Amino acid sequence: MLRKTLGRAVALAAAFAVSAAPALADEGMWTFDNFPAAKVQGAYGVKIDQKWLDRVQAASVRLTSGCSASLVSKDGLVFTNHHCVVDCAQSLSDGKTDYVRDGFLTAARTEEKKCPGMQAEVLVGVTDLTADIARATAGKTGLDFVKARDAARGAAETVACGGDPAFRCQLVTLYRGGQYKLYKYRKYADVRLVFAPEFATAFFGGDPDNFNFPRFNLDTAFVRLYEDGKPISSPQHLIWQSRAPKAGEVTFVSGNPGGTDRMLTVAQLETQRDLALPVGQLQRSELRGRLIEFSGRDAESKRIATDPLFGVENSFKVYYGRQFALNDRAFMDAKRAAEADLRAKVAADPRLAADIGDPWGEIAKAQTAYGDRYLRYRQLEQAAGSLSETFTYARELVRAAQERAKPSAERLPEYGDAGLALMAKEILDEQPVDPTLEQLYLAFWLSKTREYLTTDDAAVKLLLGKESPEGLAARLVAGTKLGDPAERKRLWEGGLAAIAASDDPMIQLALRLDPAARAVRTAWETEVSGPTDRAAERIARARFAAYGDAVYPDATFTLRLSYGKVAGWTYRGVTIPPFTTFAGLYERATGADPYKLAPRWEAAKGKLNPDTVFDFVTTNDIIGGNSGSPVINAKAEILGAAFDGNIHSLGGDYGYDGAINRTVVVATSAATEALEKVYGQTALVKELTRK
Amino acid sequence: MLRKTLGRAVALAAAFAVSAAPALADEGMWTFDNFPAAKVQGAYGVKIDQKWLDRVQAASVRLTSGCSASLVSKDGLVFTNHHCVVDCAQSLSDGKTDYVRDGFLTAARTEEKKCPGMQAEVLVGVTDLTADIARATAGKTGLDFVKARDAARGAAETVACGGDPAFRCQLVTLYRGGQYKLYKYRKYADVRLVFAPEFATAFFGGDPDNFNFPRFNLDTAFVRLYEDGKPISSPQHLIWQSRAPKAGEVTFVSGNPGGTDRMLTVAQLETQRDLALPVGQLQRSELRGRLIEFSGRDAESKRIATDPLFGVENSFKVYYGRQFALNDRAFMDAKRAAEADLRAKVAADPRLAADIGDPWGEIAKAQTAYGDRYLRYRQLEQAAGSLSETFTYARELVRAAQERAKPSAERLPEYGDAGLALMAKEILDEQPVDPTLEQLYLAFWLSKTREYLTTDDAAVKLLLGKESPEGLAARLVAGTKLGDPAERKRLWEGGLAAIAASDDPMIQLALRLDPAARAVRTAWETEVSGPTDRAAERIARARFAAYGDAVYPDATFTLRLSYGKVAGWTYRGVTIPPFTTFAGLYERATGADPYKLAPRWEAAKGKLNPDTVFDFVTTNDIIGGNSGSPVINAKAEILGAAFDGNIHSLGGDYGYDGAINRTVVVATSAATEALEKVYGQTALVKELTRK
Repeated sequence: MLRKTLGRAVALAAAFAVSAAPALADEGMWTFDNFPAAKVQGAYGVKIDQKWLDRVQAASVRLTSGCSASLVSKDGLVFTNHHCVVDCAQSLSDGKTDYVRDGFLTAARTEEKKCPGMQAEVLVGVTDLTADIARATAGKTGLDFVKARDAARGAAETVACGGDPAFRCQLVTLYRGGQYKLYKYRKYADVRLVFAPEFATAFFGGDPDNFNFPRFNLDTAFVRLYEDGKPISSPQHLIWQSRAPKAGEVTFVSGNPGGTDRMLTVAQLETQRDLALPVGQLQRSELRGRLIEFSGRDAESKRIATDPLFGVENSFKVYYGRQFALNDRAFMDAKRAAEADLRAKVAADPRLAADIGDPWGEIAKAQTAYGDRYLRYRQLEQAAGSLSETFTYARELVRAAQERAKPSAERLPEYGDAGLALMAKEILDEQPVDPTLEQLYLAFWLSKTREYLTTDDAAVKLLLGKESPEGLAARLVAGTKLGDPAERKRLWEGGLAAIAASDDPMIQLALRLDPAARAVRTAWETEVSGPTDRAAERIARARFAAYGDAVYPDATFTLRLSYGKVAGWTYRGVTIPPFTTFAGLYERATGADPYKLAPRWEAAKGKLNPDTVFDFVTTNDIIGGNSGSPVINAKAEILGAAFDGNIHSLGGDYGYDGAINRTVVVATSAATEALEKVYGQTALVKELTRK
Repeated sequence: MLRKTLGRAVALAAAFAVSAAPALADEGMWTFDNFPAAKVQGAYGVKIDQKWLDRVQAASVRLTSGCSASLVSKDGLVFTNHHCVVDCAQSLSDGKTDYVRDGFLTAARTEEKKCPGMQAEVLVGVTDLTADIARATAGKTGLDFVKARDAARGAAETVACGGDPAFRCQLVTLYRGGQYKLYKYRKYADVRLVFAPEFATAFFGGDPDNFNFPRFNLDTAFVRLYEDGKPISSPQHLIWQSRAPKAGEVTFVSGNPGGTDRMLTVAQLETQRDLALPVGQLQRSELRGRLIEFSGRDAESKRIATDPLFGVENSFKVYYGRQFALNDRAFMDAKRAAEADLRAKVAADPRLAADIGDPWGEIAKAQTAYGDRYLRYRQLEQAAGSLSETFTYARELVRAAQERAKPSAERLPEYGDAGLALMAKEILDEQPVDPTLEQLYLAFWLSKTREYLTTDDAAVKLLLGKESPEGLAARLVAGTKLGDPAERKRLWEGGLAAIAASDDPMIQLALRLDPAARAVRTAWETEVSGPTDRAAERIARARFAAYGDAVYPDATFTLRLSYGKVAGWTYRGVTIPPFTTFAGLYERATGADPYKLAPRWEAAKGKLNPDTVFDFVTTNDIIGGNSGSPVINAKAEILGAAFDGNIHSLGGDYGYDGAINRTVVVATSAATEALEKVYGQTALVKELTRK
C-alpha cells in the first residue's frame, strides 16, 4: 500500500535499470511546471497542454494523513483509497460499532462523519524562491546553514499566506536543494467520511497479497470536503468514467509521491543499506510480532490492532524491498556508474568543477558521524515513543510551549507559525486512545532504547531510573490524562506555565528527555544533515548543468504527474495480464482470513457482472503517498485510484524499471458496479455519474 | 551466551584485524593434534606437553544440547553453565515447581534428576580418514559427490564403533574438507541435574547485559554422569581451584566451539550478508516480538516462555553482531585481501594451480543457485516447523520410518545407523510440550512460509489448503498426540506401517510436506552444497600448501583448545578492567527485572565477601558451543567456566581481533563462595575441593 508514511521499495531478485540522469521511458514523478509533454506526445501521440495541466491540478487533492485523492463531483466529493481513511474509520468506531470490519455507508449527507485530524489541500500556486534562500544562507555551513535556511523558510511561509486561515503555505526543497519553491494550498480542515467498504473487501488477501498482483481489492473510499458546515462547491472536479480501461491506454497519475531517494550519493545509499534500513526493519519486525500476538488475544484486541498492524506490515514489506534493492550488486553498480558519469561531466568542465567542488566527498565524510550518532538520534528523537499517541502529544505539547515562547524564525521549524494550525488540529481533535496499545508501544520503545544504547547510557538512565521498561510504561499509561482532548487543550493553551505545573507522568517524561533529545538533534544537524544538505545543493546544480531539465526531482509529498500506459509485464518467462475481474475474486476466496469474503459480497455474487474489471496495472512511476491518486486518461477522465505497486516496484525509492515496475489501480468500473449492486449506494453513484 | 545452536557474531563499530592465514597472537581454536605449543611457550613461557593435552582431553566433556563442560570430581561431577541446563530445569518443572525461577538444589545424590534428551560425551580417539574419503568420492561432483561422501561417512562411523553402545563415532569434516577424521567418544546417556542457581542469578542483567561486560552472572551449573544407575568413576577430572585468577595469568579453554565461518570465500560471505542473515534476523525478530507479548499474558505464560525467549534473544544478538561485521567495509576488505593473497600464492605455483583449479569461481557460481533456492530451502526444510517440538517429532518419525527401511549407506546421513541411538533418545525421552507455545511456533512458521513463498506457491497450497496459518496451527495442536512419549514410541517402533496408519494430523502434515521438502533438499545439494563442499576441499589444500600447519580449522563442535590470558581491553579510549566482584552485583541491582536479585542473594548480602572475583575476561578465541568450557591454567587447574563473549567478539564467526575480542568467564572463586554461603551446598563444595 502506498500511504506516504509507509513509502515503498525493489524486485527481490530483479535486474534494475537505473537511469544515469535523463529519465527512461515512463520514468519520473514530474512537477507540473516541468512536465515532459513533448516526450509524452512522441511516445503516446497525446498532447498535454497548460489547460489540461491546470484542470488536473485543480482537481487533485492532498490528504495530510499521507495520501492523495481527487475531486469527483461538484459538491466536494473526493475519491481516494480505503487504506487512506481506515484510520478515520477506526477512530469513529468503538467496542460496539466497527466501521473497519463492517464498512461505512451513508444514505444521506447528514450521515457523513468528520474524520479526526484529517485535512485536505489543493495546490493553488507555486513561486520560485531559490535565489532568496541562497541569499539567506550564503557562506553558511553546518548548523548555521540549517538555522538560516529554516528561518528563511519560516519567514517565506508566513509572508506568502499572510495569515489567511483558508490557506497553507510550505517552502518545498526540490532536487535536494537545487530549487526552493513556495507551494500555496487552499486547505479544508473539515473532511467527512462518505463511504468505506469492509476491511476484508478493501484489503482482500491481506498482507500476503500486498504488493503482489493479480489483486482483487476494492481499495476505495469517498470523503467530502466541508466548509462552514456545508459541502464545498467544486466545479473543477474530474469526470468519473465508469467504463473499464483498455490495454495500452495512456494513463496519467496526479498525486503526491511521499519521498524517494533516487538522488542520494552512493555513500548515502551504503549507509541506508548497512545501518538505517536493517535497524529499522529489525525493530519493526519485533513490533509486528508483538502486535500479531496482541491481536490474537480476543476480538476487541483484534479490532484495536487491525489498523496499526496493517501499517507496520505494509512498512515492513516496503523496507524489505528497499533493503534487497540495495543488497543487489547490479543495482548498486548501476548507481555507482551514474554517479561516476555525473562526476566525470563536472570534472570535464573546469569552471563547473570550481563551482561544484567535491560534495560527494563531503557527504561521504558525513557518513562517519551518521554511523556514530544514528542509534541515539533514532531512539531519542526520530522514533521516540514508537507509535505511542500520548507520548507524541506530550512531546509536541512540551515543545510547542517552549518554542511558541520564541519568535517564529528561531523555533524548531515544525513549530513555525505556518505549521501551527495543522499541528493544533492534530493535537486537539478528539481521537480514541487505547491504553493497552499505548502500553505496548511504550514498553517496546523503552526496551529497544535500552537494548540499542545499553543500560549504562546516560539517557537510558534518565528515562528508566530504577524502573523496568514494562513497569514504567504501565505507570505512564495509568497516570496520563493526555487521552482526553480537554486536557490537551488546557496544556496547549496554557503554554509553558501549564506544562511546568503539570503532574502528568507523560508530560514529565517528555520534559525529562527533552534536553538529551534536543542535544542529539543539534549534533545531528551540525554533523550530518547540515553538511549533507549543503553538499546536495551543489550536486543538484551539477545535475542541472549536465542534464538540463530532463531530470525530475526526488519526491517530496507535493503534486507530481507521471505518465504511462495500461500494461502487464513479463518476468522470468511468466506474463502477468494487466486486468483482474470480479470472477477472480470469487475464485481466490477460501473462507479463511485474509481470503474471506465480506458477507455483502457473498450475498451479491449472483447480481454482479463477473467480467467487471476490478484492479489493473499501469507503467506509471509512483511511490508511497500516491495512494488514492486519480489515474486518468488523455481526456482527464478518471479510470481508477492508484493503491499499490507490484513486488518489483518495491525498489522504487531508489530507481525505476519500466519493464517490470507497475502501479496497481482499483478501477472506477469496479467501484461503480460495487457501489450500486453490493452496497446500494445509489445516491453516490448518481452524484458520480451525473453529467 | 555461547550455546552452540546460537553461535556468536563482530564489534558493532570496531575495526577488524583479520589474519590472512597464519593465526594472530592468541587466535585459533586448535585441534589437540595440532596445538601450537611452541608459539604458546614463546608467548607465555608455558610448556604444554602431550601428557597435559591428554589429561585435559580426558576431562573435557561435550553436551549434546550444544555445550561444553568438564569433569571436576572423581564421581562423575560435571561443571558447566546454567544456560546449558536451563532447558533441563524447564523440563523438570511444571505449573507448581519452577526450577528455572527458583534454582535446583540437592541435599543428597538421590535428589539428582535425569535431564531428558541430554547426553554427555568424552573424546577418546581420533583417526585420519582423509585418504579413504578421497578414494570414495574420486571423480564425483554435485549430488553424486554428496551421496558418495555421506555413504562413506556412515560406513566409517559404523565400522569404527562396531556397534558398541557405550561409544559414539562421528566423521568430522575439518578445514571444510581439507581433512576428514573419525572422532570416537565415550558416551553417557544418563545425565542428572545436581545444582542450578536461579535464572535471575545466572542471567542477572538479562538480554540488555548479554554479550556485554562488566557482568555479574553466576552462569554455572553441575550435572553428574551416571551409568547403570550409579555415578561413574572419573579419576581423570580437573582440579578445582577456588582462588581467583590473576591479571595476565595464562588461560586455556578446552571445549567444543560450535561453528565458525572464517574460511568462507568472499562470495559466500556476501550471500550471508545480503540474504541468509537478514532473512533469518527479520523472522527471528518477529518471533521474539510474539514471544515477548505471549510471556506478558500471565505468570504461567512467562514461566513457559522464559527459556525459549532467552534462546531467541541470544541468537538475535549473535546474528546482529555477525550482520554488522559483514556490513563493515574494512572487515570485508580484509577478507578480500586474505583471499587475494591465497589465490596469488596458488597462481605463482603452476603445479599447485593445476591441482587447485578455480574453486573460488565455482563457489561464486553456486551463489546464484543459493539465491534462487534459499527461501524455499529454508522454509520447507532447514527451518521447517520453526521451534515446534511436535512438528520436529513428526518429521523425524516420518523420515526415520522411511529411511530405516533402506540400507544405512543409502539413507539421509542423519538417519545412518551411527546416529540413531541419540535420535531415539531425543525423540523418546519424556519432555513436557506446551500446546500454546506449539501453536505460536506453528502459526508463525506457516504464516512466514506463505509470506516468503507467496500464497500461490504449490508447497504453500499443499501446507494450507483452504485453512489459514492460525486455523491450521490450532487444529494440528488440538489433534496431535505426539506430546505423549508412549505414542512416539509406538510410531518409532511401528515404522512405516504405523506411520501410514496414523491419523495424527501432525504426522499427516509431515507426510504431506515431505516430498516437496526432500525435492528442495536434493536441489540444494545438487546445485549449492555439493559444488560448494567439493570446491572447499581444494581451497583447503591450497591453504595447507601456502601456509602449512599454521592454520586451524573452522569450528565444528568438536574438541578444541584455545590459549590466551586474563586481560581487560581498551576501546575508544575507555579501558575495561578484567574482573568484577560480588560488590558490583549489589551496586547494579535495581529491584526491577532483569536487575532484580534472587531472594537468596538479598538474604546473603552480609555473609558474602564483597571482594570475591565474580566474572572475568580473557583473550581466548572461542565461540558458541564453548559455553561451559573449563577455563584452566598452566597446571590444568580450573579457574572458571566460559559463558559469553564481549560485544566486540560478536564477529568471531568470521574473524578474531585479539585487541578487543574477549571471552567472559564465571570464576570458580565465585562459584565456591556462592555454593557455600548463598546455597548451603556444603556436600558439593566438599566434593569439589577434596584433594
